[in-house]
Amino acid sequence: MSDHPTNGLSDVVHQRHRLGILTITAESKRIEFGYLKETLDLTGGNLSRHITVLVDAGLLNLEKGYDGRRPKTWVSITRAGREALAEEIAALRALVDRHGD
Amino acid sequence: MSDHPTNGLSDVVHQRHRLGILTITAESKRIEFGYLKETLDLTGGNLSRHITVLVDAGLLNLEKGYDGRRPKTWVSITRAGREALAEEIAALRALVDRHGD
Repeated sequence: MSDHPTNGLSDVVHQRHRLGILTITAESKRIEFGYLKETLDLTGGNLSRHITVLVDAGLLNLEKGYDGRRPKTWVSITRAGREALAEEIAALRALVDRHGD
Repeated sequence: MSDHPTNGLSDVVHQRHRLGILTITAESKRIEFGYLKETLDLTGGNLSRHITVLVDAGLLNLEKGYDGRRPKTWVSITRAGREALAEEIAALRALVDRHGD
């Protein structure tokens, strides 16, 4: 196995929408589902599908509750999620540094 | 549509093995198939599949010939491939700059 930077990427984290979800959730304590949907320009079904992959991998937590009488879902990144994202960002940085300019 | 950096990524280019193929081919005039296979730690079938996606998108060219009596396939990046890779690298740089450290 060679050390090309793309060999260090995980498909779970690298997929562009999942990478978007992880970077956004890493910036706050928790993020509301509708905000993620709008920011990433995804349908609810598509966003749910990617969130499920990340929850199953232990990288996100889901919390369901109410904002007044409206049902809401909040998403938060786990410690394993932060670690996986940090690895991805390090690999991307290596790629950008190697290829850039 | 928001301006989150992952919204600017193309699935054709962003997929990690295809990103590896494009970055490696961008560094040389042409690359031999077996070298790509080894560098990216892929099976021949898997590499072929990703190369086909990139050829169909107009981002790579294939050239078949002989090295002595051994049949060889060389892969080269097209001008459109260089442009698509430059866009991807710019989007990744925005993501790394936004998220890093």
